[in-house]
Amino acid sequence: MTSNSIISPKAKIATGVTIGDFVRVHDNVVIEAGTKIGDHCVIGQPASVQAYANKLVRIGEDSVIRSHTVIYEGSEFGKKLETGHHVVIREGTQVGLNLRVGNFSDIEGACTIGDYCRFHGYAHIGRGSVLGNFIWIYSLVTLTNDPLPPSKILQPVTIDDGVVVAVGSTVLPGSHLGRGSFVAAGSQVHGVVPVASVWKGSGVMGSVHRLASLEHGVQHPWMRHFAEAFPVEAQDRLKALSEAVLADSRAFSTRKK
Amino acid sequence: MTSNSIISPKAKIATGVTIGDFVRVHDNVVIEAGTKIGDHCVIGQPASVQAYANKLVRIGEDSVIRSHTVIYEGSEFGKKLETGHHVVIREGTQVGLNLRVGNFSDIEGACTIGDYCRFHGYAHIGRGSVLGNFIWIYSLVTLTNDPLPPSKILQPVTIDDGVVVAVGSTVLPGSHLGRGSFVAAGSQVHGVVPVASVWKGSGVMGSVHRLASLEHGVQHPWMRHFAEAFPVEAQDRLKALSEAVLADSRAFSTRKK
Amino acid sequence: MTSNSIISPKAKIATGVTIGDFVRVHDNVVIEAGTKIGDHCVIGQPASVQAYANKLVRIGEDSVIRSHTVIYEGSEFGKKLETGHHVVIREGTQVGLNLRVGNFSDIEGACTIGDYCRFHGYAHIGRGSVLGNFIWIYSLVTLTNDPLPPSKILQPVTIDDGVVVAVGSTVLPGSHLGRGSFVAAGSQVHGVVPVASVWKGSGVMGSVHRLASLEHGVQHPWMRHFAEAFPVEAQDRLKALSEAVLADSRAFSTRKK
Repeated sequence: MTSNSIISPKAKIATGVTIGDFVRVHDNVVIEAGTKIGDHCVIGQPASVQAYANKLVRIGEDSVIRSHTVIYEGSEFGKKLETGHHVVIREGTQVGLNLRVGNFSDIEGACTIGDYCRFHGYAHIGRGSVLGNFIWIYSLVTLTNDPLPPSKILQPVTIDDGVVVAVGSTVLPGSHLGRGSFVAAGSQVHGVVPVASVWKGSGVMGSVHRLASLEHGVQHPWMRHFAEAFPVEAQDRLKALSEAVLADSRAFSTRKK
Repeated sequence: MTSNSIISPKAKIATGVTIGDFVRVHDNVVIEAGTKIGDHCVIGQPASVQAYANKLVRIGEDSVIRSHTVIYEGSEFGKKLETGHHVVIREGTQVGLNLRVGNFSDIEGACTIGDYCRFHGYAHIGRGSVLGNFIWIYSLVTLTNDPLPPSKILQPVTIDDGVVVAVGSTVLPGSHLGRGSFVAAGSQVHGVVPVASVWKGSGVMGSVHRLASLEHGVQHPWMRHFAEAFPVEAQDRLKALSEAVLADSRAFSTRKK
Repeated sequence: MTSNSIISPKAKIATGVTIGDFVRVHDNVVIEAGTKIGDHCVIGQPASVQAYANKLVRIGEDSVIRSHTVIYEGSEFGKKLETGHHVVIREGTQVGLNLRVGNFSDIEGACTIGDYCRFHGYAHIGRGSVLGNFIWIYSLVTLTNDPLPPSKILQPVTIDDGVVVAVGSTVLPGSHLGRGSFVAAGSQVHGVVPVASVWKGSGVMGSVHRLASLEHGVQHPWMRHFAEAFPVEAQDRLKALSEAVLADSRAFSTRKK
């Protein structure tokens, strides 16, 4: 811990945590063992939303918070959280194991996010979004929540396990992306995306097991060729998810004929 | 004021202003009473554009500047400016009352912005843009200015009172968005958008009072159901604007038949 | 050099370099004469990718690194690098002369970038991208690299000299943009873009010398009317490039008839 970071004496920081330079750690902060906080971060930023003000933020074991990241109080993160640089995560976010968030991403609070999700850069997770496990959100994807902007109607997005949302897609308010579905780059998603289906542009166009590269010998669901990017303790869940999505995908394909 | 921020003795900072940690306040800065500056900000960043170099930046009363924000010298902000985290505002920006700018937004300078505008995250306000009052710019909206990039032609965008530009839209150079018009998500705007009309994709498709949610009992113009999000002193102006836009919208609807 | 920045004694910093406040300069850093580093930057961020860990990062003479920029170790930048605020450049990036990178841009490492390239804001240069000289990448452009996300297939983008990619375009994995080609705003590029052609939406629609503003008397290739924005020592190369692109453009135009 460097002498030029400002650490509240009320923060509970496990032994062995490393904290970079020019870091501000506020009062309501718990940082568990093995975590590294990069330079210029703000951890435990006070929340102005009353329901979360003065509530703890807990950052799980072995996390890596990269420089210039801002994390508000009033959230909970499982082990091995990993953020890129210049990330913002607002209050009331409940996160499972090993979330990875890319540079310049913004999680707007009051969200639920499961285990092993991966967000790339400039991902914008709108307030109130509900995400399952093993979800991929690529760069410049926005999850919205207001169907008639500006209004007081809040219709967040729901995304089920194993979903992939490719670069530059916008998910419109109230959308529900079914388990294992795949949204192609630059799409605008609305309504219900069926389980194990492929969404392209503004509609469904197939089932995920048709996504394949013959040249490279890989075929979706992605868990079939990309499971090894996850830790050993996640492998059983990935295998079960892969089988379920594959079955759904074949069923979806048959139904369409 | 913390001892580890670097405040120029030439800056004029009202009593009661709070300044976070690791902040750099340069020479040509005026910060008025009641304002809070977050951690890691740079206020009064020297401008390399000659016309604004060594000119004052004035931040009005009761503003909230969130962490990692950079504001150049040579700008003027009315009361209650509010920035998110990691915002950049360049020199020569003239702003009215109570502008709110979301995380990661970039105002590229030499802009005029009226009262009570709201920008969400990753909004990019191109150099020279001219905006009226009560304007909503959602995430990932870009206001451009060069019709033949790269060139020396500068054709900034003009946006009139009460306009809404929804998520992910690009406004092409020289566009003029008429009072109370609404741009749907993911549009590409060019030319003139008629007052109180709805623009979707690359053209006009209706009038704003047709935008409604029967389920929630709300109908545009948005000032009819969302005025209470603004302070009491703005209510008369919102009411007048709402009536004007509604009249324009009905007239536009009739004309199209 | 201010007393509140943390400069590794192992860093090699030329005399006359200026370093702002709250800056962290790590071990494997070489900063050449005349360079200015803004506040809150991190220079020489340790790379976790083994091939680049503990390798030098060299920042060429007369560079300007603006505040809150993060540059990893293991890269090489020619003279007059210029970054905006909040930029991230990861390890293994080889850059020629006078690259300019706009606010919030992200160069994801293992890239090769030639001389005199200009990137605007929120540009995302995917890992492994190969760019020539005099290339314009506008705001919110993403260069991708994974054709079947998520997968282990890496198919970066190649962009040849003089190319322009306008605002909000996505370049899909493995695309090759030929010399002097122009991608219109909001496009999705795939495959091969012929030399000196114009790509709009999802296909080719003309040749670049047809891009013109009669009103302003300017016509592409852009080097004909915008060369003076570059330093004097670049003029001969720009002239040759302009002539080559113009010849290609006329040939392409004829071939299409």
